Amino acid sequence: MKSDLEIARAARPRPIHEVAAELGLPEEACEPYGRQVLKIDPAAVELGDRPRGRYVVVTAITPTPLGEGKTATTVGLGQAFGLLGRRAVVTIRQPSMGPTFGIKGGAAGGGYAQVIPMEQLNLHLTGDFHAVTAAHNLLAAMVDNHLHHVARGTVTEPELDPARVDWRRVLDVNDRALRNVVLGLGGRLDGVPRQAGFDITAASELMALLGLATDLADLRARLGRVVVGADRAGHPVTAEDLGAAGAMAVIMREAIKPNLLQTLTGTPALVHAGPFGNIATGNSSVVADKLALRCADFVLTEAGFGADMGAERFFNIKCRVSGEAPDAAVVVATVRGLKYASGRFKVVPGKPLPDDLLTEDPDAVHAGAANLCKQLQIVRRHGVPAVVAINRFPDDHASELAAIAEIAASAGARSAVYSGVADGAEGGVELAEAVIAATEQPAQFRPLYDLAEPLTAKIEAIATEVYGADGVDYSSTAERQLRAYTEQGFGELPICTAKTHLSISSDPALKGAPTGWRLPVREVRLAAGAGFVYPICGEIRTMPGLSARPAATRIDLDADGQVIGLS
Amino acid sequence: MKSDLEIARAARPRPIHEVAAELGLPEEACEPYGRQVLKIDPAAVELGDRPRGRYVVVTAITPTPLGEGKTATTVGLGQAFGLLGRRAVVTIRQPSMGPTFGIKGGAAGGGYAQVIPMEQLNLHLTGDFHAVTAAHNLLAAMVDNHLHHVARGTVTEPELDPARVDWRRVLDVNDRALRNVVLGLGGRLDGVPRQAGFDITAASELMALLGLATDLADLRARLGRVVVGADRAGHPVTAEDLGAAGAMAVIMREAIKPNLLQTLTGTPALVHAGPFGNIATGNSSVVADKLALRCADFVLTEAGFGADMGAERFFNIKCRVSGEAPDAAVVVATVRGLKYASGRFKVVPGKPLPDDLLTEDPDAVHAGAANLCKQLQIVRRHGVPAVVAINRFPDDHASELAAIAEIAASAGARSAVYSGVADGAEGGVELAEAVIAATEQPAQFRPLYDLAEPLTAKIEAIATEVYGADGVDYSSTAERQLRAYTEQGFGELPICTAKTHLSISSDPALKGAPTGWRLPVREVRLAAGAGFVYPICGEIRTMPGLSARPAATRIDLDADGQVIGLS
Repeated sequence: MKSDLEIARAARPRPIHEVAAELGLPEEACEPYGRQVLKIDPAAVELGDRPRGRYVVVTAITPTPLGEGKTATTVGLGQAFGLLGRRAVVTIRQPSMGPTFGIKGGAAGGGYAQVIPMEQLNLHLTGDFHAVTAAHNLLAAMVDNHLHHVARGTVTEPELDPARVDWRRVLDVNDRALRNVVLGLGGRLDGVPRQAGFDITAASELMALLGLATDLADLRARLGRVVVGADRAGHPVTAEDLGAAGAMAVIMREAIKPNLLQTLTGTPALVHAGPFGNIATGNSSVVADKLALRCADFVLTEAGFGADMGAERFFNIKCRVSGEAPDAAVVVATVRGLKYASGRFKVVPGKPLPDDLLTEDPDAVHAGAANLCKQLQIVRRHGVPAVVAINRFPDDHASELAAIAEIAASAGARSAVYSGVADGAEGGVELAEAVIAATEQPAQFRPLYDLAEPLTAKIEAIATEVYGADGVDYSSTAERQLRAYTEQGFGELPICTAKTHLSISSDPALKGAPTGWRLPVREVRLAAGAGFVYPICGEIRTMPGLSARPAATRIDLDADGQVIGLS
Repeated sequence: MKSDLEIARAARPRPIHEVAAELGLPEEACEPYGRQVLKIDPAAVELGDRPRGRYVVVTAITPTPLGEGKTATTVGLGQAFGLLGRRAVVTIRQPSMGPTFGIKGGAAGGGYAQVIPMEQLNLHLTGDFHAVTAAHNLLAAMVDNHLHHVARGTVTEPELDPARVDWRRVLDVNDRALRNVVLGLGGRLDGVPRQAGFDITAASELMALLGLATDLADLRARLGRVVVGADRAGHPVTAEDLGAAGAMAVIMREAIKPNLLQTLTGTPALVHAGPFGNIATGNSSVVADKLALRCADFVLTEAGFGADMGAERFFNIKCRVSGEAPDAAVVVATVRGLKYASGRFKVVPGKPLPDDLLTEDPDAVHAGAANLCKQLQIVRRHGVPAVVAINRFPDDHASELAAIAEIAASAGARSAVYSGVADGAEGGVELAEAVIAATEQPAQFRPLYDLAEPLTAKIEAIATEVYGADGVDYSSTAERQLRAYTEQGFGELPICTAKTHLSISSDPALKGAPTGWRLPVREVRLAAGAGFVYPICGEIRTMPGLSARPAATRIDLDADGQVIGLS
């Protein structure tokens, strides 16, 4: 099989203006960024009287560290809708450049199910990530500048407490050495020394905020609400208090516009916001989805990691902000994923899959069934019909694929084998038909909790009803923080639990559908701008590292100036 | 008078494709970035048999901390050429976002002499700075990742010595707290603790490299030559040795293409590379200038700071790389600048000019004459005819403007009053005519030194013949470094002296044309990728700070989502 890059480069893209016109996007809403990408200004599109398409979220079983091919399934499903003559848009998140040069080497789907141009998608695209980085770090500079001028007596208000600053810096690079730093060293003009650190840009609160803002005015308002720390009395200090929010909005004013690309077969793809699903929502943007819903008959949107992660946030955070209810969910499952869920195999990120995992073994697939059933149950708990996408890999055996279909049937869900990576649009037709049928069932979307419930009740609802925990154990720090946030008026925010994506529980070693455990909440943090409270349950890496031989060492230009080594 | 932003927004831009077509740039060389900016791929333009335009470098007297309006003069001169029916292109550097949110609030020229769209110019433009930031920091991450894996025994080659790493990180933000940091703190997976720091992106060697690369292949080769430190035997370790250069070139492959914008009156403006003139060349790019020279009759290119700084580097570094000889130089002088050069007034960055400097006082202008004469002499030393642009400000008095004309005449140079900021294209006509006349004189461009001369001889030529020093004093460190670079094969590189721009000497307190002093070289650094050696003479700030009330606090979106507060 050809490499992803070879396939992408051999594609004959449709003129992107033609793709936009087909969606009913007027010329004045479409700004070109290079020849094959348009930035779409939703404010320039009249949406009022257009019919609404059907809304399908693509989620998954608990993924292996290599992922379940969820992006490729979303993209390939969009291609199959096109083949069936249905007007579909896929809405996906922009890949992060850090991992592109780390392990992944790219994230535009795969094989014959890709979004193009893949080089632009995987590199800067239209600069939205750079805008998030710049706005985030301008705020950080203004925080430390404030501390500096307070220390020198040239500024007195709002007098942020240096010990209570919790706004870090961000860069879109895998740089382990920046996780923990001491800054402000040097002389008396070089700031106030303090401990700080960097996260990857995708983990920025501003990236989550970009994904949840409903328009430019809402983006501006949310930026003003971003809390960077507290004053000496413990009162929250915001970006607005520091006078930074306006400039941040100016830096991000183009980033709020989704990016229109296309799949290999010309299905429109709106690419927007970031992929970080651990401490953030990990969903494509509200702006992109709302736009897409008025431009096509089907919108296929990706939610990060398993249904316990991205889909739960999709249901309880994103859909609440957008006011759009989903009509169906696709749960991507793989043979390797269910074998991994059995707990019988060890998979290491950045290494090839172990041989024994690739040996025909339908029993091992059945041994992982509980994970798929639990993820389906999570979807159904929200009133949404589910279809299992059996994402076929070349090493899979028919008996193993059949095992997944049996598990799905036993759980009362439709299923279909998906082979779009190898077969392109044709490989997604069966799945597309199952999805269309699912959207014809009556969906009765209902969120898990009311926002008016106490923060603890909302956390407990997620822990018990979604994760299957027996209950929640709060540290004394977490209890104190929850009380403070409630007193400060943040009690009605939704919850975005920060936990591992490698288990439905908070312990990555527990496979399948763990029971008999309690969710430990070590601390609780506030993303007042993005608009959620996030309990920290376990160690969450917010800045990846590089291996001894990162993908960057294999990425280069050839003699013709073409990119090589992206995949 | 209206604000810069109001004037810029009221302009009726020409369709940018029309501007490109007039330059003879074929459609396939022009990629749109938004509606009013094109990225131009020089590789897609046949330049071979086109006639070459005349090449004019715009430089200045020693500037006040507020600048001499050099960009506005370059831009307004281009507008005046248009009014005279002459085909001109202005080639300027992209503004840095850090200072935009710090003191400046924007840098697109000023008043009726601006490049538009000014919001895009001052913010992300087409992402070239972001690409430099990303490539620079990927290399930094790979440096620290190398140290980490060497320490853990997972990598053995090339075994960079942690104590000899001198590759810092960069961000395009004024962030004093990042000047000096300790990174690699945390646990054993979080890198190796060491001292490090951040510069502003414009100060990155990669920005200088971008300005000097002749094409994409040369960019790739130069990236490979970037030295990040040394191994334990003292041998240089490069980006190529770490396997990073290919990925860096992939990140920067769009950044090598200059950006086509236009002035308020529709003169083409190629905007490319960065403005940092202290430790770098501070010139617009070789790629942009070479392209422009084959597309127009006149190319007006800006060189940063006074003629001792930007123009000297233009002559001895940039023109040597490009092989293009200048036909004339414009030396921008202001009443305020010459009064400041008299040493009688105190000007503080970020504060309004003192009242006494604005009082009519032609004597004070004459008292600063030596500076203008010395800068003119520097230009002539390189065989290039000079024209003095008397950049008029609203507070200037006729007697003071006349004083500058007298000084220019006494030095044998043409001069003309320039008032393009207030008067637009008309305000530059007299200057444009003087420039045209100057380019009709025979220029006999000759660089100051041969590359084959020893590094010390080249440094001494600049110190004595350009700066007017009596000689050079090297620290023992500098002597050792010069020996080492020569032994390592870097002896034939040109010199880019890092010194203050606020004096022709290395001491910012010495005004006018200081004599009777010696240039102290504290240390010498190598920019092997950009292709120069830079002696450090004095304290050079490579990361600005923010004031107690930075420009960012005044920049915002209005109710219609339009930017306010840029200037």
